[in-house]
Amino acid sequence: MNYRLDIQYDGTRYGGWQKQKDTDNTIQGKIEDVLSRMCETPVTIQGAGRTDAGVHARGQVANAHMDTDKSCEEICAYLNHYLPEDIEILQVRQAAERFHSRLNAREKVYQYRIAAGFHKNVFERKYQCPLHENLDIDAMREAAGFLEGTHDFKSFCSNKKMKKSSIRTLHCIEIQETEQEICITYTGDGFLYNMVRILTGTLIEVGRGVRKSETMTALLESCDRKNAGFTAPARGLTLLEVRY
Amino acid sequence: MNYRLDIQYDGTRYGGWQKQKDTDNTIQGKIEDVLSRMCETPVTIQGAGRTDAGVHARGQVANAHMDTDKSCEEICAYLNHYLPEDIEILQVRQAAERFHSRLNAREKVYQYRIAAGFHKNVFERKYQCPLHENLDIDAMREAAGFLEGTHDFKSFCSNKKMKKSSIRTLHCIEIQETEQEICITYTGDGFLYNMVRILTGTLIEVGRGVRKSETMTALLESCDRKNAGFTAPARGLTLLEVRY
Repeated sequence: MNYRLDIQYDGTRYGGWQKQKDTDNTIQGKIEDVLSRMCETPVTIQGAGRTDAGVHARGQVANAHMDTDKSCEEICAYLNHYLPEDIEILQVRQAAERFHSRLNAREKVYQYRIAAGFHKNVFERKYQCPLHENLDIDAMREAAGFLEGTHDFKSFCSNKKMKKSSIRTLHCIEIQETEQEICITYTGDGFLYNMVRILTGTLIEVGRGVRKSETMTALLESCDRKNAGFTAPARGLTLLEVRY
Repeated sequence: MNYRLDIQYDGTRYGGWQKQKDTDNTIQGKIEDVLSRMCETPVTIQGAGRTDAGVHARGQVANAHMDTDKSCEEICAYLNHYLPEDIEILQVRQAAERFHSRLNAREKVYQYRIAAGFHKNVFERKYQCPLHENLDIDAMREAAGFLEGTHDFKSFCSNKKMKKSSIRTLHCIEIQETEQEICITYTGDGFLYNMVRILTGTLIEVGRGVRKSETMTALLESCDRKNAGFTAPARGLTLLEVRY
């Protein structure tokens, strides 16, 4: 039977989503360990988004083929009983046999939070990038407009060896500003390695005035990572939702 | 010169506000260390509320007599530069020479947050008490009504050796409920040792139906801690504001 898992985590303590050979300090590793113990046989899960070390998720989705007599509610309770307190399984449900959390994902939503204002908020410090500068939000919104749409996003990808297509569609970049925070929400059909963090670093540089919004088109066309902005810190990033 | 400090902290890692002889892992100790270094002479600060180990603050107030050439903004920047990232000084200002943060406080506001709903929120786990039970909010509000006003709150005080008056005025207990959280806000002229946490534990027992709201008056009159409810965990409690 194929199961879909909806997962929330505080990524601060972890080496990212994806299981690594030399360490099990990953979200995927933690969940697989508990499921393998439950099923008394190795279980592999597929995550929809391979979040980096330190990146958080409110609505990560994974799927796993498992053989168990437990109900979905029982699997969910078992996982939450044995998982650490910074990982929570929100829901477990049966999925179609061919459902694949990553390959079937139609749209993903990421959110990047930047601490604004003079003071940091100690309660949000692990979920915001501390910037505390005045950014030109109008210029950032203008730049975001140039980035929306279907483009080759190679300039915004850290993986130099990437051989597959780097064409993606960014449906929407929404920038919201409050006294305490600037929040950038990215909705798209898929994201390259570090893409949201490089987009954010580039938009911050536009907000600082060191980069003009009109240069975004040339930046996209250059297909060269070196022309884009810095990679914004992981802690500000959260995978909000995966849509099917 | 006497200075007033407005302070925010995540109390998770600390042994409470008040400096202890055998450990300096307290908020007061951390701030005094930095101020003493800045002034090159020992500085003592007075906090308005002695929050317990694990209790947080959004608006703690302290005062300190110091001899320094620095401006208020410079003192604030110096403190935030050297303090750990879970303590933030929001403001430093000059105060009247006789201003005492605790003795002059007219009113304090504490908030207790209880995680409701089936799932915990991993991002709020350090600031909520995880309960995840259905509580009868109407009964809790009724009980809160009996507790408001001027009473001897000895039944709600952990300090058995307390010799001073335990009469306090609770101006308001407000209980707000969302799908994710029950939030109890206490406004009063002063609070005894553990008082907010015992009030909360007692209200939770009313919400569970194991204690009737009408028994609050007899409980107050008994002046016996043993008759009140459990002491709710520190992590759910935040000192919101001190009013002068």
